[in-house]
Amino acid sequence: MDDRVREHAEVLVDWSARVEAGDQVVMDVAEGAHDLAVAVAAELGKREATLLSTYGSSEVSRAFLRAGDDDRELAGSDPELAMLSAADVYLRVGGGRNTTALADVDGDRRTAARKAGTAAREARMDTDWVSTVHPTRSLAQQAGMAYEEYQEFVYDAVLRDWESLADEMANMKEVLDAGSEVRIEKDRTDLTMSIEGRTAVNSAASVAYDSHNLPSGEVFTAPHATEGEVFFEVPMTIDARRVQGVSLAFEDGEVVDFAAEQGEEAIADVLDTDEGARRLGELGIGMNRGIDRFTDSILFDEKMGDTVHLAVGRAYDACLPDGEAGNDSAVHVDLITDMSEDSRLFVDGEVVQRNGTFRWEDGFESA
Amino acid sequence: MDDRVREHAEVLVDWSARVEAGDQVVMDVAEGAHDLAVAVAAELGKREATLLSTYGSSEVSRAFLRAGDDDRELAGSDPELAMLSAADVYLRVGGGRNTTALADVDGDRRTAARKAGTAAREARMDTDWVSTVHPTRSLAQQAGMAYEEYQEFVYDAVLRDWESLADEMANMKEVLDAGSEVRIEKDRTDLTMSIEGRTAVNSAASVAYDSHNLPSGEVFTAPHATEGEVFFEVPMTIDARRVQGVSLAFEDGEVVDFAAEQGEEAIADVLDTDEGARRLGELGIGMNRGIDRFTDSILFDEKMGDTVHLAVGRAYDACLPDGEAGNDSAVHVDLITDMSEDSRLFVDGEVVQRNGTFRWEDGFESA
Repeated sequence: MDDRVREHAEVLVDWSARVEAGDQVVMDVAEGAHDLAVAVAAELGKREATLLSTYGSSEVSRAFLRAGDDDRELAGSDPELAMLSAADVYLRVGGGRNTTALADVDGDRRTAARKAGTAAREARMDTDWVSTVHPTRSLAQQAGMAYEEYQEFVYDAVLRDWESLADEMANMKEVLDAGSEVRIEKDRTDLTMSIEGRTAVNSAASVAYDSHNLPSGEVFTAPHATEGEVFFEVPMTIDARRVQGVSLAFEDGEVVDFAAEQGEEAIADVLDTDEGARRLGELGIGMNRGIDRFTDSILFDEKMGDTVHLAVGRAYDACLPDGEAGNDSAVHVDLITDMSEDSRLFVDGEVVQRNGTFRWEDGFESA
Repeated sequence: MDDRVREHAEVLVDWSARVEAGDQVVMDVAEGAHDLAVAVAAELGKREATLLSTYGSSEVSRAFLRAGDDDRELAGSDPELAMLSAADVYLRVGGGRNTTALADVDGDRRTAARKAGTAAREARMDTDWVSTVHPTRSLAQQAGMAYEEYQEFVYDAVLRDWESLADEMANMKEVLDAGSEVRIEKDRTDLTMSIEGRTAVNSAASVAYDSHNLPSGEVFTAPHATEGEVFFEVPMTIDARRVQGVSLAFEDGEVVDFAAEQGEEAIADVLDTDEGARRLGELGIGMNRGIDRFTDSILFDEKMGDTVHLAVGRAYDACLPDGEAGNDSAVHVDLITDMSEDSRLFVDGEVVQRNGTFRWEDGFESA
């Protein structure tokens, strides 16, 4: 076995999920993720956890969802709910064989399936859950990369010194927690938002940091009262539609105008979902410099060093004062803007990042 | 998709498991069984059942079981138990990529794992469960067959007119239910056993017949008070050891002498397991003529037409009067003898099968 697969499994089990003896673990294995699943099973065995593996196959889901009458009922799975309710830890080991395997499943059927799965999803969120991916040829293709090149990309992002990145990200969290207004300034962008009373999450790829993605490497919070304009040049895929060059204009915290160089209709559909879809749910600062290019996968793209992402839609509870509800929506769609050149990030009027260099980094003054 | 895969899925869901709308279904998918799993998912969708798929990977199990200290505790999985307790139907879709994938897992660890899985196994047996296999190259190799040849073999065994085979097997069940003594006579074999008070199962590959294998096609009961000698010429693999030419001698229902042309030690280990391992738990009459050769897989071999199998070890409750305990043991190992030539099967002194022809079949008198 490739040593990197073993190391990936170790990071997932030790650093990310903090698995301990006796933990009841459910691992979901995507069609192309067998090798990583085997490595994870060995780590779980060493730690004397229990293990039940589920089969996260897009093709099985597609066949199930496409079958039957258009108006058939879709009920949640009681065995799935019972399983997740009994789990301490849930590990999603992604990595399929075709990122568009569900392309011909009707939108209404998808929505019905998501709704039927609500109770199971909530039970899963109550576990120490972590999502990661095994590098597959399908994901390499989505990224426009050769297979071995993509493997290196994934392991550069995943096999980091997380402790030290967490320490660095603590600087950013400190600034955001103390601040009340964030401003982003770059070409076609001048946006301000309030973060008054909000708590930032140091998302260091570990449940110990309220962070559930491996890789992670971002600091995020839940902004409100957004004003101004912002431009996102990073391309992405939303519901199987290519989107690029998105502009949003905000007034009183709400999107009042939008445009896109490509895929404008996908953006329109997102914003029309519900009332909360026109407000921001997240401001995230990407700080994982192991991720050095965009690969059309949000798990990686939004953590890339020297980027900022804003999500329209649902806010994360971890950023809100106890008992306070944040922006609510059925969607959470991240859009990414490059901060590496001709750009500044301000908190309460002071520059925190200039042209990709943070205030606490060498070279900030000359950046 | 190969039409035969779709038909296999239909037989499994309709005839075997009798899935109805609203049924909570768990499907276990072996490493090489993806295509059949996709077809089964479509059938389940049509019938408006729910579906949760688990990943039945031998390599994941091996990695998990081999890890850790020799004396580590192995606990059962609470999520697995909860999942199975909430399931109405359990479908095991077998078909791995290596029949010896668990060869280097220590015997004690296997035993510990079996013990840790007792509660989950019992919950599974309380569902309408059915085991089948998707034909894989690994199973073809085990059978000593080419891949396409093996596919034809499997579909010949599975895609039968089960209703009509069930009707035919009802003849055999009737004879056994009315009878009190079975005698098997052939070369190196003269064995009698009591079936007094026992009920035969018409194992027609459907939960509606107390039958949980697809393919099936046997009538079985739980004999006792076995006397005499029996020879099993059909080769098989027991715990990864090749076994052939087994002779057993019984007195007062217990094995008092045994020999094997190959793998005698494997037989010795089985018989030494516990007290019940030296008594018969099953007499089965193979009646599936779609199975025309031995393939070193008990799922198929024991159902082959014109064979009889005897299992040492555990008896099935379905054969016993309510509340009566049958032979108990941690093992249930089937041994198969060919009845197609120079052989007779008697019930209460009357010939029921002669040289492979049953009493109710054409040509019985001249057989």
